[in-house]
This record gives sequence, C-alpha cells and structure tokens, in this order.
Amino acid sequence: MVEGNLPMVMTGKNPVAQPETSNFDLASYLNEKKHLVDEALDSSLPIIRPETIYEAMRYSLLAGGKRLRPILCLSTCDLMGGTLEMAMPTACALEMIHTMSLIHDDLPAMDNDDYRRGKLTNHKVYGEDIAILAGDALLSYAFEYVATQTRNVALENLVDVIARLGRTVGASGLVGGQVLDLESEGKEGITVDTLKFIHIHKTGALLETSVVSGAILAGATLEDIQRLSRYAQNIGLAFQIVDDILDITSTQEELGKTAGKDLRDKKATYPSLWGLEESKKQAQQLVNEAITQLIPYGDKATPLKAIANFIVTRKN
Amino acid sequence: MVEGNLPMVMTGKNPVAQPETSNFDLASYLNEKKHLVDEALDSSLPIIRPETIYEAMRYSLLAGGKRLRPILCLSTCDLMGGTLEMAMPTACALEMIHTMSLIHDDLPAMDNDDYRRGKLTNHKVYGEDIAILAGDALLSYAFEYVATQTRNVALENLVDVIARLGRTVGASGLVGGQVLDLESEGKEGITVDTLKFIHIHKTGALLETSVVSGAILAGATLEDIQRLSRYAQNIGLAFQIVDDILDITSTQEELGKTAGKDLRDKKATYPSLWGLEESKKQAQQLVNEAITQLIPYGDKATPLKAIANFIVTRKN
Repeated sequence: MVEGNLPMVMTGKNPVAQPETSNFDLASYLNEKKHLVDEALDSSLPIIRPETIYEAMRYSLLAGGKRLRPILCLSTCDLMGGTLEMAMPTACALEMIHTMSLIHDDLPAMDNDDYRRGKLTNHKVYGEDIAILAGDALLSYAFEYVATQTRNVALENLVDVIARLGRTVGASGLVGGQVLDLESEGKEGITVDTLKFIHIHKTGALLETSVVSGAILAGATLEDIQRLSRYAQNIGLAFQIVDDILDITSTQEELGKTAGKDLRDKKATYPSLWGLEESKKQAQQLVNEAITQLIPYGDKATPLKAIANFIVTRKN
Repeated sequence: MVEGNLPMVMTGKNPVAQPETSNFDLASYLNEKKHLVDEALDSSLPIIRPETIYEAMRYSLLAGGKRLRPILCLSTCDLMGGTLEMAMPTACALEMIHTMSLIHDDLPAMDNDDYRRGKLTNHKVYGEDIAILAGDALLSYAFEYVATQTRNVALENLVDVIARLGRTVGASGLVGGQVLDLESEGKEGITVDTLKFIHIHKTGALLETSVVSGAILAGATLEDIQRLSRYAQNIGLAFQIVDDILDITSTQEELGKTAGKDLRDKKATYPSLWGLEESKKQAQQLVNEAITQLIPYGDKATPLKAIANFIVTRKN
C-alpha cells in the first residue's frame, strides 16, 4: 500500500484513494515549500566585500537540491501549531549546515568529488582554500542567522535549537560520522553496527535535528518531541539505505553526482552487507515505523507521512 | 611611561610606581586566569568514539597559547560586575574558535605552515582530512558549548553573544579577513586600507568579540559596550602591528611558529608599508587610545590596561 501510492501522487496522475493522503499532492507541497526556502536562502546572503567568499557560499547554497531538511523543519513546526516565520531562519540554517558539510566532504583531502547536484564542486570552481573558508563561513553564518533572525519564539527554545544545531554538526554528529566513514574506507569486515554509527551521525543527526527543531520552535511538548525524534531516526536511516541503493542503481545524470562511487571506493554499504533486495525491504520497514509514530496527529501529519514515503521512492 | 612600565611588572622585579598599576602583577594575573581557562578547556572536551577526532581537537585546543581572548572575556565580565561562571563557557568558545581558525589557516591549501605554538600543526600530525574536520567540530562545539553551559545570564544577552560569535567567524569576520589576505599575497601595491580591512576582520573582530561578549554576559549598558568596543578595536590593530613586527625581529624559537614568513611570502605588512620604527610608534599610539577608553572605570580596569600594554611589549 505505502509503496504503491507515492509515485502516483508524485506525478500528479490518478492518485490512488488513500484515507490520509487522498487529496494531498506531495509534489505541489514540496515545490511550494522549496520555492519559499529558495527565496529565503537567496535573500539571506547578499554579496559584499570580499565578494569571492560570498559568491562561493552562494554558489553551493543556491545550487538546487531538494531542500528536504528545511522542509522537514517547516512541516513539523506547522504540525505543532507554529508559523512559517518562526521556523524559516532555522530552516535556512539547516540548509547552510548541510551545504557546508557537502563542500568539505567533497574536498580532495576527503571524498575528492568533482560533481555535486549536477555542477562542479565548490573547490573545482573556487579552489581548495576558498572552498574550506566558504564552508567555515556557512557554518558560522547558520548560527548567526538563527540567533539574529528568529522571531516570536521563546528564547529558551531558541537556545535549545542552537545547542542542537551545534551538537549535530560536531564530533557527536556529522563530523563524527565522516571521521568513522573515512577510517572505514577500504577496510574489510565493517559491521552493520559501525555502518549504522556512521549513518546515524552523518545523515541521521541532521535530519533528526531538522524535524525536532521545527517542533521545539513551535513550543512542542517533550512527548511530541520524542515521538517526532523517533519518526526522524527511522526516516534518517531509511534515507541512507536508499542513498546506498541509488549509488548502485542510478546513473550520474540521475544523481547529479558521481554514481557507482561506493563500489569503486570499496565502501561498506547496506547493499554490500545485505544485498539489494533486503536493503529495500529494510528501508520500507523503517519508513513504516516512522509513519506509525505519526498516527496520533491524524490528517495533520499527512505531509510528514508523504515525505517518509517519498524517501524510499525517490530517484535521486 | 607606558612602554617602560610593563616589562618590569612582567618580570616582577621592582615595579615602577604607577598610579593605576602600582600593586598589580600582570604576570600573576595572566597566569592565574590562563590556568583557570586551561582547566575549563581540558574538561570541556572528553574523548569518546570516534577517538581520532576528539584527540585532534584536543591536540590543538590544549597546545598552550596565551589564552588572551578568553582572559579578555573574563576580565571585562568581571569589570562589568559579572562572575567567572557567567563568562567561562564563552571564554572557552572563543578559544575553540581561535584554535579552529589556526588549524584551517595552517592547511596546505592556505598558509601551509608546519609549526604552531612550537608544535607540529594539526594536519602534519593527523592529516589534512582530520584537520579540516577538527576545525569544523571545534567551531560547531563552540556554539553548542555556549548554548548548553552558560548559567545565570539573561537569555537575550546569551543569544546576542551567540550572534556575535557567528558574525565574528564568518565572511564578515575571520573568514573575510583570511580571504582578502590570500588574495593580497604576492600582490604589489597593497594599500594601508586593504591591510586594515584584513586585520580588522582577521584579528580585530575576534578580540573585539572577546572583550564585548564578557560585558554583554554581565548585562553591561550600551554605553559601556561601545566604550569597550573602542578599547578592543584599538588593541586589536595594535596586536596585529606587533605580530608583523615580531615576524621580522623574532626567531622561530621565540615565536613558536615559522618566523620571517611574511617577507618570504612577500606579504604586505605594516613594517613593509611604514617601516619598523613608525610601526612601533603607531602600535603604541593605539594602545594609548585604548587605555583612554578605560578612564571612567578607574582602578577596576587595571587588568585591561595592563593587557593593552602587554600587547606592545610581548615577545611572542
């Protein structure tokens, strides 16, 4: 049921009647929110002296992408009764942080990637020095932006969101995951536990913070926050499994980045440990568990349910 | 007067009678505060999995250094009636940010330095990939640490400090200064205005935030904050001029980093534009102007006055 529904909703043709998503067009929802986020990101970062660094920051920040993290933040804030205005600065900050992690991960000293989102990577255009600095600047600007632009949010919630953003990037989050990923590359006998550690930190942490920060900004209860955390943890792991699958099954054109890279680099992935079919099954199961967390919210949670489904059915 | 006084106070021998610094031993003051900061930094960062990244972060964070930025923060917080407890998390964050900027500036793609504070630079020990990530992790941890560890501070002041920390690192601060510095390297005809832009951003901004954040945490008035900003701007520029002077007049052993590097890299410096004597004169004048800002605070500002003097008389 879950698997069959979403692609049709996505293309907008003859949506299958589903109790909770019958009149919901995810493609329109994602487009509308992506448009709002793109506009906010564009105006968040004017070009001043020294121009090079602002251009480099904007090059990667405005290079497209699904804007999944900002949209998750906006969606949960809405679900918990908050406004767009309350969540948008944090939504932008999440994308700044995500972009920074991509710029640094792509560097020659790390994954050494030439393409990202269908365009040359930041260091291929601006050089390694500027790419490192553009990442640093995006990271610090994310915190500045949340601290200066957030309106109508209780200050203790704002400080909580800032703390979580910090934890999500650092050694206990993105960086920690990337370190273990680098250390595991080319090694034999990587366990599922190590792989999970890598992905919970490298991908899961930022997705979880995206979901949870939207709820905190809206003043959600601890119970709601915990429920939404579990939703996010499940879609986070599903997201990574699907990423690994797409690396094998997609072309570079579809992905907008180098395909088949995991195999070439002998990286441990879920398909390499479980096989393709079992990986797909596990991803679907995680998405089902994520959706279960949303039951108490009924129809109001339709966007978050559809996003969970989208994660296993996406093509890039 | 100012020039003659400090070195004697520093060595603790027969201090010349000065109305405001007569019984003040700056060396002891700096030692005591440095000790407190070192202890706080040490306990701020335990080693957990993945160990490599925490070790790399600690390697540079605990590599010594004068801890000038944390001490300035503690001193102004104290001057404005605040406590050590209120300022220490921000003091640590300032050193994390400073350390991060050193790790990234030392990278092969940037200034390509092998030594810092008398030890091998981070990337020489841990590799470029880990050095980049250690910088990223220190930067994000700085924000997390301030947001989670600060006690007894009004939340609007805490958020203000977080915003200023962000602005200080990014394209409008450290990063912006480093970009213009890289762009100016080896170029003929760098003006004093460009040089000032570089240093106001690269060195001045973080020193100013160190001073001002201590005041904000203590709940200082706008007038006091502006006065302390001017103090900080003056010592910031003086600090950089003296840095340029020391690069010419000191040995590597004295500096703990490569000496004579500016000349070798054909970098525009104050001595290269003004000559050594005029540079020394300008630095002294800036320090005098900084001290003038502190007059309203009388003896209470003795540590900040002594630190200003120390900046022109230091040997590394």
